Amino acid sequence: MLEELKEKVLQANLELPKRNLVIYTWGNVSAIDREQGLVVIKPSGVPYEKLKPSDLPVIDLNGNKVEGDLNPSSDTATHLVLYKAFPEIGGVVHTHSPWCTKWAQACRAIPTFGTTHADYFYGDIPCTRPLTPLEIATEYEKNTGDVIVETFKNLNPNDIPGVVVHSHGPFNWGKDPMKAVENAVIMEEIAKLAFYTQSLSPHAEQMDHHLLDKHFLRKHGKNAYYGQKSQKVNN
Amino acid sequence: MLEELKEKVLQANLELPKRNLVIYTWGNVSAIDREQGLVVIKPSGVPYEKLKPSDLPVIDLNGNKVEGDLNPSSDTATHLVLYKAFPEIGGVVHTHSPWCTKWAQACRAIPTFGTTHADYFYGDIPCTRPLTPLEIATEYEKNTGDVIVETFKNLNPNDIPGVVVHSHGPFNWGKDPMKAVENAVIMEEIAKLAFYTQSLSPHAEQMDHHLLDKHFLRKHGKNAYYGQKSQKVNN
Amino acid sequence: MLEELKEKVLQANLELPKRNLVIYTWGNVSAIDREQGLVVIKPSGVPYEKLKPSDLPVIDLNGNKVEGDLNPSSDTATHLVLYKAFPEIGGVVHTHSPWCTKWAQACRAIPTFGTTHADYFYGDIPCTRPLTPLEIATEYEKNTGDVIVETFKNLNPNDIPGVVVHSHGPFNWGKDPMKAVENAVIMEEIAKLAFYTQSLSPHAEQMDHHLLDKHFLRKHGKNAYYGQKSQKVNN
Amino acid sequence: MLEELKEKVLQANLELPKRNLVIYTWGNVSAIDREQGLVVIKPSGVPYEKLKPSDLPVIDLNGNKVEGDLNPSSDTATHLVLYKAFPEIGGVVHTHSPWCTKWAQACRAIPTFGTTHADYFYGDIPCTRPLTPLEIATEYEKNTGDVIVETFKNLNPNDIPGVVVHSHGPFNWGKDPMKAVENAVIMEEIAKLAFYTQSLSPHAEQMDHHLLDKHFLRKHGKNAYYGQKSQKVNN
Repeated sequence: MLEELKEKVLQANLELPKRNLVIYTWGNVSAIDREQGLVVIKPSGVPYEKLKPSDLPVIDLNGNKVEGDLNPSSDTATHLVLYKAFPEIGGVVHTHSPWCTKWAQACRAIPTFGTTHADYFYGDIPCTRPLTPLEIATEYEKNTGDVIVETFKNLNPNDIPGVVVHSHGPFNWGKDPMKAVENAVIMEEIAKLAFYTQSLSPHAEQMDHHLLDKHFLRKHGKNAYYGQKSQKVNN
Repeated sequence: MLEELKEKVLQANLELPKRNLVIYTWGNVSAIDREQGLVVIKPSGVPYEKLKPSDLPVIDLNGNKVEGDLNPSSDTATHLVLYKAFPEIGGVVHTHSPWCTKWAQACRAIPTFGTTHADYFYGDIPCTRPLTPLEIATEYEKNTGDVIVETFKNLNPNDIPGVVVHSHGPFNWGKDPMKAVENAVIMEEIAKLAFYTQSLSPHAEQMDHHLLDKHFLRKHGKNAYYGQKSQKVNN
Repeated sequence: MLEELKEKVLQANLELPKRNLVIYTWGNVSAIDREQGLVVIKPSGVPYEKLKPSDLPVIDLNGNKVEGDLNPSSDTATHLVLYKAFPEIGGVVHTHSPWCTKWAQACRAIPTFGTTHADYFYGDIPCTRPLTPLEIATEYEKNTGDVIVETFKNLNPNDIPGVVVHSHGPFNWGKDPMKAVENAVIMEEIAKLAFYTQSLSPHAEQMDHHLLDKHFLRKHGKNAYYGQKSQKVNN
Repeated sequence: MLEELKEKVLQANLELPKRNLVIYTWGNVSAIDREQGLVVIKPSGVPYEKLKPSDLPVIDLNGNKVEGDLNPSSDTATHLVLYKAFPEIGGVVHTHSPWCTKWAQACRAIPTFGTTHADYFYGDIPCTRPLTPLEIATEYEKNTGDVIVETFKNLNPNDIPGVVVHSHGPFNWGKDPMKAVENAVIMEEIAKLAFYTQSLSPHAEQMDHHLLDKHFLRKHGKNAYYGQKSQKVNN
């Protein structure tokens, strides 16, 4: 079942080591089939170079395995929360990519410093609040998802397709699994730029909001004019 | 038309990912045929690995497309302003290369710290002033070019073949498109060196101006003695 | 003798340049056959690309060469101390990998800042005290091992499979030589993350100890649930 | 003439881009035939990938070209001064390798922070004083050599096989051209380690001098015991 989606999820997972977002098995990508309410995700602890499409477990939105021999990623419950809360997303990715993880470990949002950021993320990339001891002890992975959703209470996840989780690392999403990974690659680059921008200019203010609007809307929404007419440059 | 120039512009664009100046489609190179007043430029949003010479649109200096099926780079208007204002340049390149982008986001000129800088850039590499809300709202890309030209009011663009645009990233130019890219590669290296020089020595002063003169003039102008007699080592 | 173990030690040594932990001959891996009390180790000063299994000397736990034409690593005495003091380890690795060496040269323990650390190291990665002039003058390499053991007086080397040696660099260990190298790769990544975390947040506190417990125990011990049932994810 | 030496100098020059010490033509290696008093050096401004042994000019110690069609490196006069002043060296290399250049631009010696440094450089790697305007205006490249020699007035160039030149970059030397390049690679690594060590520990003191002695003398001189008996591990 879901052969085509499995192939897409496999390719998106293989992009992680290729783009230097992971070493060993430090990341996982999933995708959802919205009609059937089924999710395909990387199996836990399996090296990318050994993955075959048939290795990818299929689970329902309650976390029950519908197909597959292998255990799904230990982060599966977080992915499921995001699919339920963010109805327009089709793929989710979690890694420990270095630059995003540094901001996560410093427990800080990534500030909006320039047009590279503005081209893809419509404002600061938030950092979640810490989980409570009780949230860590019980249903930890589900609660990680819940705290992400709580962080986006007043934010549009389609305009800011990523977050850093407190003391942990980044989660990203997109309209499909490859787009989610592209957002992860770009957020990693933005996180690096922001680190050095602040080193060069410790009291740097956020970029001008007119310029932020200009760049985000040049690439997104109905008046976008970047790219070719046949392309949809959306998250 | 302009087959030879298209091939040169293609090769110069391919140099961007090869030299690690760009990821995805984050950069564009153009060249001008001065006799015909026509510019060849990368099409917007097309991945480098798929580019063919015939994909490259040809435009006139008013921005009208003369040939080609694809939209030109969204930054085309900036390139055109530079060709009109700087009569000796033959190629222009814009990227979001990381080290230059960090200085741009910090809204700072790149100081002249050593002979690596002096070999290619005859003094500080300036940062443009911020655009006004009105300049952002109307003809944004043209105004980006205008503010670069304004920045070079008292500077020679042949001696300082690059700039960082406030909250954005670098533009470079040269006598031809490959030379423009070479200047971009070198400015990226210089931007990196300057960041760490300043970290090591926060109150570092600019280099001695005699040494700056010596190194720049060792490589440029009529008394240059670097390289072989058959080579012209100009920007 | 010990042909299978030699092959494993060779492969683990080859992993060092492949994972960017060493340049030239700046690292060595060994393994122990606990039944026979014999250790296989890299020969001193031999480039990795020229190593053959038969080049690897075999030594006993007193440092006597039992087989082989080449001198064992100059750090052999340190490896032997660790095998004698830490009975559950099967492999030891020493490198001058850059990020760990920076913490070693700064004479600082690597703080526990996030889940990447917690997944593999159950608390701070300690730095040894400086050796005394006498300890340096006599049996220097043995004393380097002794000061590591002293540092782990109140620590479990199975839960924290690595250390930085004061003014020197990292040592790591694991249940076998490849696992020791994996721990070295991961410690290098953690050391890098910790450097930048602290730069971003100079007064960063250690991570919440509930989260540390959660992540370490999710991957280690009898209630671990990361990975596939057939996998043992131990150090 | 000097066919064997030309081949060695070629190989040593090719090592520069391979080891990431240079981009474009930003470095040059030479070697001396002490019996004949002749030096083989990279020609100026020729890309490494196009170099053939027969391209390498041969010059005498007064700088007169004895053989070859191409201009020697513009830094030739500096190399010659070093060969005349340091009688035991057989190869010289100059690059703008990034980490050494950062220390040079910051006008600072590289402090002795750990055993990686001590294994190859017996104490701080000095930075030259600035040249005077007159020294820059006349015989600049010869004066660069003279100020290096002046810097080593009370230092042994065999024990500290490298220097950073004020506002410029590194020079290294060794018993032959490949060893000179190896010292350049190692100095680049040491310069990187020292930068971050100091960032982690701003008031870091130099390493213990007993440990410095131990490591340097473990690898150099008559009581060295690193490596195999057949190897001479000297600079």
